[in-house]
Amino acid sequence: MDTLVTDTLLVTMDPGVPGSTGDLGIVDDGAVGWIDGEITYVGPTADVETADADHIVNGDGCLTLPGLVNAHVHGRHSLLRGAAQDVPEIEWMTRALGPISDHMTAEDGIVGAKLTAIEALLSGTTTLGEYASEVAELVSHVYQPLGLRISATETINAVPDDRADIAPDETYPFDRDAAAESITRSETLFKRFGDDPLIRPAYGPQALDMIPLDLLKSITEQARIHDRTVHMHVAQGDRERRQIAARYGTDSTTVAVLDDKGLLGDHLLAAHLHGATPEERERIAEAGVRMVGCPSSITAIDGVVPPIVEYHDHGGAVGLGTDQAPGPGGHNALREVRTAAMLAKADRGDPTALDAAGAIELATIGGARALGIADSVGSLSPGKRADVVICDMEHASVTPTVQTPFHTAIPNLVYAASSNEVRDVFIDGVQRVSDGSIVGLDVNDVVNDANKRAKRVFADAEADWRAAESSLVTAVDTGRL
Amino acid sequence: MDTLVTDTLLVTMDPGVPGSTGDLGIVDDGAVGWIDGEITYVGPTADVETADADHIVNGDGCLTLPGLVNAHVHGRHSLLRGAAQDVPEIEWMTRALGPISDHMTAEDGIVGAKLTAIEALLSGTTTLGEYASEVAELVSHVYQPLGLRISATETINAVPDDRADIAPDETYPFDRDAAAESITRSETLFKRFGDDPLIRPAYGPQALDMIPLDLLKSITEQARIHDRTVHMHVAQGDRERRQIAARYGTDSTTVAVLDDKGLLGDHLLAAHLHGATPEERERIAEAGVRMVGCPSSITAIDGVVPPIVEYHDHGGAVGLGTDQAPGPGGHNALREVRTAAMLAKADRGDPTALDAAGAIELATIGGARALGIADSVGSLSPGKRADVVICDMEHASVTPTVQTPFHTAIPNLVYAASSNEVRDVFIDGVQRVSDGSIVGLDVNDVVNDANKRAKRVFADAEADWRAAESSLVTAVDTGRL
Repeated sequence: MDTLVTDTLLVTMDPGVPGSTGDLGIVDDGAVGWIDGEITYVGPTADVETADADHIVNGDGCLTLPGLVNAHVHGRHSLLRGAAQDVPEIEWMTRALGPISDHMTAEDGIVGAKLTAIEALLSGTTTLGEYASEVAELVSHVYQPLGLRISATETINAVPDDRADIAPDETYPFDRDAAAESITRSETLFKRFGDDPLIRPAYGPQALDMIPLDLLKSITEQARIHDRTVHMHVAQGDRERRQIAARYGTDSTTVAVLDDKGLLGDHLLAAHLHGATPEERERIAEAGVRMVGCPSSITAIDGVVPPIVEYHDHGGAVGLGTDQAPGPGGHNALREVRTAAMLAKADRGDPTALDAAGAIELATIGGARALGIADSVGSLSPGKRADVVICDMEHASVTPTVQTPFHTAIPNLVYAASSNEVRDVFIDGVQRVSDGSIVGLDVNDVVNDANKRAKRVFADAEADWRAAESSLVTAVDTGRL
Repeated sequence: MDTLVTDTLLVTMDPGVPGSTGDLGIVDDGAVGWIDGEITYVGPTADVETADADHIVNGDGCLTLPGLVNAHVHGRHSLLRGAAQDVPEIEWMTRALGPISDHMTAEDGIVGAKLTAIEALLSGTTTLGEYASEVAELVSHVYQPLGLRISATETINAVPDDRADIAPDETYPFDRDAAAESITRSETLFKRFGDDPLIRPAYGPQALDMIPLDLLKSITEQARIHDRTVHMHVAQGDRERRQIAARYGTDSTTVAVLDDKGLLGDHLLAAHLHGATPEERERIAEAGVRMVGCPSSITAIDGVVPPIVEYHDHGGAVGLGTDQAPGPGGHNALREVRTAAMLAKADRGDPTALDAAGAIELATIGGARALGIADSVGSLSPGKRADVVICDMEHASVTPTVQTPFHTAIPNLVYAASSNEVRDVFIDGVQRVSDGSIVGLDVNDVVNDANKRAKRVFADAEADWRAAESSLVTAVDTGRL
C-alpha cells in the first residue's frame, strides 16, 4: 500500500466493512489503506500487515472518516464575505450583494474561490459542488491545483443579469443568445473535464424561472442520455414562485411544471426546495430527485430551515451545502454539520431530530449520493477512492474521547468541533492537508490578495450600493456595521 | 499606561467613546489602554501618546472588543461532553446524563471545569456565570488561577438528587436540612469572595419547584438588602410546570407565583424562560428581571429557541450562556453568538432578526447587564476594567476585512469566525491568552487527565446507564453512537 492510516477510530459510513459495527460502520482500532488512490484495506489495525505500507500515518487519538462533501457552493463570493446579511430576503441579492458583486472582475472571483477552497480543505472537505458561470475558470485556476474533487456545474440561464428593475410579477424576458452561450460553455466543460477523475461536470439550468422550457427539456434529455446530473435551484422562494405563476399560470408551481413536463427523475439534483409544499417534496423524493439543502444560508437569507430531515424521511438522497459566504459566513463543513442539526431540532421542536450520526451521514455519503458520485466516494469502502479525513480529537474543545459504552467522538465531532481538529486530508489518495496546513499553498498570500481586491471592489461599489438603498445602508449610518 | 493596544478596529460597545461612531462605538484606527487594570484611554490611535505606554500591543489587522460574557454555565459537565444529546427532553437529565454524572468525583468536576475554562478563554470569554453546587471549589481550583472573572452562583435547593423515580405530577419532597446546607455554602461563598475584585457571588435558588417558598423569600430579601443577584432557572420546561401546578394549584405558573409573592424585580436573573408565556415575559421584563438565554443548549435539549430577541424587544437586559457541554457541545462563546443569530432568524422566520451588531451586544454589554456587572465590564469605556479581546481578522475564514463603506469584520466575527481568530485576551488588565495560547497552562495535561478520568467515569457508569434505558442505548446498539 502507498499509505496506511492505523490505530484510529474509524467511522467508515459503510456497515459492510469487515470488523465494523452498526449503521456507521465503526471500527474501534481501525486502519484504512490505499494504492494509487484506491482504498484496498478498511478494517481492524490488527488484521492488516503494516510492513506492507510505504507510508504509515498514526491515527492514535484521532477520528478518521470519509472526506466531507459540500454539495452546493458558489465559491467566488467568498471575496465578499460580510457584504450582505441581516437584510430582508427580497433585498439580499438585488440591493445588498448585487451592487457590490457587479464590481468584481474575473480575477477577483478566482481569489474568492481560493478563500472557499482554503476553508473547505481546512474543515475536512474533499468534494465541492461548485455552481458558477464560467466554472471552468475556477476549476483550472483554483480547485484543480489544490486537488479538490469537484462537481462542476456551469450555470445556464436566459435572463439578463440586471433584472433588479423588473417587477416581481412581470416575467423576465428570455435572452436565447445568452442561453446559447451558456450552453456552449457547458458543452465545453464536459469536453474539457469529462475524462478527469476528479472533475465531474454537471448541467446547471439555474432555475425554472430563468430558462425557456424547451431548453430545459433538451438539457434534461442530454443528461439522461449521458448519465449526467442536472443541478438546479428548485422552489427557492417567493421571487421564483411569482415568476412561475406569471409565466405558467396562477396555480402553477415549479414542481408541478417539472412533473407535468416529465422533467423529474434521478438525473435531477434540486437545491433548496424550501418553497415546495410537503406534498411536492414527497412527490419528487418518490421520483428519485436528489436534494441538497443549505441550512446556514437559507436560514440567514430567508429565515427558513430547509426541509432536509423531511426529505430524508421520504427516502430521498440528501446532502449539505454552504451556498455562499455572504449571509451564512463561509464554507466550514463541520460548522455546517452542527448548524444543520441545531436548526433541524429548532424547526421540528424535537431534540431527537437529526442526530449526530444522521448529520455525519448527510455530510459524507448523503452528499456523495446527492452529487451522484457515491460509487466512488462518501464512505471508506474497499474499491472506492481514498478521500479521507483525520481529525485529532485531543483538543480540549472535543475532550473527552471515550469508546465505552459509546463513542463520544461522534457527537463531539458534530456538536463540539470547530475544524481545528482536522489534522490530515487526503483526496484521491494524495495528501492535501498535513497537520492542519494546506500542502503547497501560502494562505497568507491569498488573504493579502483578497483584502487588497475586496478593498477596491467595495470602494468602487460604494455609490451603487448606497443608491440601491438596502436596509444595510441605514445600519451603516447608525454605526451598527 | 501599563498596556496600550494600537492601530486596531475597535468595537467598544460604548457610543460615548470620543472619536467613535454609532451604536457600537466603532473606532476605525483605534487604541485602548489601561493602568492597573482600569481603562484610561479609548479612542483614535492618533490622539494618544504611545510613548507613555510600558507595553504596546500592535492591533493592526485585528478587531478589538470587550471581553465576551458567558452568563450561564455549569462548567463541571465538560468532563461528560458527548454523554447526552439527541434524546427526548424528558430523558436528558434523568436517563442519559444523570446515570453517568452520578459517577463523577469532586476532582473529576474540577477537571471538567478546566476544560470549560480553556474553551472559554480561547474563544474570547473573560467572564463566566458559573452555577454549581460547591462552586467555591471550582473558583479556587480553576477559575481564579486562570484569572477569569466569575459570577459565582452556589446552587441552593431542597430536593433530593435522586428524583428520577418521582412521578412528574407528584411534588418533590423538600429536604430542609439539605437546603440549609446549601444556604450555608452560599453564605460562606459571600464571605470568602465578597471582596475579590474578580469574583462576584450570587444567590442560586435552583428553580421555584426545587425550594420552599419561604426560603426563596428570605434569599430574595438578603439579595435586595445587599444588592446581590438571585440567579435562578425560571420556566425551563414541562417538568417544572407540572411541579408548580401540583404544588401551587392547577392554574399556577412559575412567573405567576413569583409575581404574586413579590419576588420579581431587578435583583433577579432568570435563566431560560422558554416555558413562560409571551405575556409573562413582557411582565417580568417590565419588572426589571434580567434574562440569560442559552440558544444552543435549549435547542439541543428541548428543541426550543429561547426568547432572547423577544425579551430584548421588551426592553429587558439579556445575555447569552452556553449552559453545559453535553447537548450543545461546549463553551465556545463566538460559536454561541453565531448560533444565537441563526436560531433567532429561523425561529422568527425573519433574516433580519438578531443582526450581527445585536449578537455582539448580547455577548458583551448584554451579558454584563444580565450579571449585574455592567458598571465594571461589558464595554471598552474609560473607568471600566480592562477585559479586552483582540481577534486577528487575517485568517482566510474571516477574510476580507474592509472598513469602507462598512466594516465586514463585524458580520464576519459573528457569522464566519470559529475562535481561531482570538489572538490575545486580557482580563482585569492581565494577559491571559497570548497569540492563541493560554498563559501558564499546559492544555495537553488537562486533556490527558480529562480523558483518563472520563474513561473511568463512563466505565463505572455503564451498568446504571444501560439500566436507565434512554434512547441512546438503542443508538449504541445499532452502531450510531
